[in-house]
Amino acid sequence: MFETTLRVQYFDTDKMMVMHHANYIRYFETARTEYIRAEGMSYADMEKEDFQMPVLAVEVEFKEPAVYDEEIVIGCRISKLSHASMEMEYEVRSKENGKLHAKGKSRHGFTNRALRPVPLKKKQPEMYAFFKRLHEESSEEK
Amino acid sequence: MFETTLRVQYFDTDKMMVMHHANYIRYFETARTEYIRAEGMSYADMEKEDFQMPVLAVEVEFKEPAVYDEEIVIGCRISKLSHASMEMEYEVRSKENGKLHAKGKSRHGFTNRALRPVPLKKKQPEMYAFFKRLHEESSEEK
Amino acid sequence: MFETTLRVQYFDTDKMMVMHHANYIRYFETARTEYIRAEGMSYADMEKEDFQMPVLAVEVEFKEPAVYDEEIVIGCRISKLSHASMEMEYEVRSKENGKLHAKGKSRHGFTNRALRPVPLKKKQPEMYAFFKRLHEESSEEK
Amino acid sequence: MFETTLRVQYFDTDKMMVMHHANYIRYFETARTEYIRAEGMSYADMEKEDFQMPVLAVEVEFKEPAVYDEEIVIGCRISKLSHASMEMEYEVRSKENGKLHAKGKSRHGFTNRALRPVPLKKKQPEMYAFFKRLHEESSEEK
Repeated sequence: MFETTLRVQYFDTDKMMVMHHANYIRYFETARTEYIRAEGMSYADMEKEDFQMPVLAVEVEFKEPAVYDEEIVIGCRISKLSHASMEMEYEVRSKENGKLHAKGKSRHGFTNRALRPVPLKKKQPEMYAFFKRLHEESSEEK
Repeated sequence: MFETTLRVQYFDTDKMMVMHHANYIRYFETARTEYIRAEGMSYADMEKEDFQMPVLAVEVEFKEPAVYDEEIVIGCRISKLSHASMEMEYEVRSKENGKLHAKGKSRHGFTNRALRPVPLKKKQPEMYAFFKRLHEESSEEK
Repeated sequence: MFETTLRVQYFDTDKMMVMHHANYIRYFETARTEYIRAEGMSYADMEKEDFQMPVLAVEVEFKEPAVYDEEIVIGCRISKLSHASMEMEYEVRSKENGKLHAKGKSRHGFTNRALRPVPLKKKQPEMYAFFKRLHEESSEEK
Repeated sequence: MFETTLRVQYFDTDKMMVMHHANYIRYFETARTEYIRAEGMSYADMEKEDFQMPVLAVEVEFKEPAVYDEEIVIGCRISKLSHASMEMEYEVRSKENGKLHAKGKSRHGFTNRALRPVPLKKKQPEMYAFFKRLHEESSEEK
């Protein structure tokens, strides 16, 4: 599983003294961006080629809250891939002790800039091949 | 279904030119707070009585993106209630034409300020009765 | 001074138990948008006419922190207007007792969508006349 | 000047296609936290000793907008120090070409957790000595 490490900022916390739950979904986004970069592409470049992958659905289970200034490790993998969409899975853990803070999923459509569906395999075969490789690697290492 | 109306702010948007998906979860929070207030209690007061209802899980399905300056109506109901937790359901619609932007759920534990579970029915029977009434009304109107 | 009322949300707070300071700047934005709307135009429509007013500078003095669930009143006026830019002033007060939470300023350039300066008086005289009226009213009522 | 590097996230952008201006103030916070850590203390630990430094004022001048996925370098120094407060200065630059995106200042009071002023030099001389060293180093390198 690809992993990226972040630190919980003061502005991430709320008066419950923990990271606000909506911010996990923001950091899922950071993790998938860094995953794509680490594997050799860039979501920013993909956008320049008239490709986007808007979030169709997201879910999170919160286990133990992350706290201010804590380093958290966000794991990310591609759990499903079709010609028109993909699903990613995430785990957020404490860097210090590996405890699970949260886990979740996001489902993404493949679209152009105008948010119209794009049959990725046909229209952008290199991008599709890229996601296919990540999906296969994700499946193997599971 | 209880409804509250909000307007999508500039700071809510992202470069996809729509409201960023994580913000729906923030506005679910606004909706449930206003629901509680509209029914005669206040989450702020509940917190003063050493009660909290942290989010245990959240899920959202995104249908059609909300755009800048659009008025959105967030519907909210209690879909499940037990002695230790509850589930709420949400719908986000365009105020103008009623189109569904997103729907979702959140699950909440009942805890004290230290985030320890509280058997609500026993410890704060009035609060439990309040949520029970909302749950019953939510079920009837469905 | 034009005034708009907002309620401090849970997601606005941080572990200092007050509204996070950066959020005042977000709500300045809400106030100026509502000010423009209340006076008969809409910033969303202005954008459709290839006009934008990016923030060139912002400053805030924080007096007394706003807390969760508190209703705050944000006052807004146009304090300076030139052909190429304008300055707005803000006051954030407690709705309950009028106490000052913060005051601030923002300076805006007049540009097109590509963020190139636009001589507003020449290029969009109606918009300039609109801001001029607001500026004059702001000056009179001071 | 102490420097920390961050990457502009998708959720940081707005429909103007650049980083939303309020987020600079969030990242000033990140920079000062990392500055304190790099110099051998931790703001999280300071808070545990009943110390806080709430923001009394903030100002930013925006020069050139930062864009999605860009790496930005935030420089940070202590520009003024008194027994009861301090001022910090920031510069946000493009990592790639050093261009200035924004510069700003923040003023902080020294308080306890209850947000009451604390005469730092008397009450927490080690903390005061720490900030004094940073201030002196900041002045020398200027």
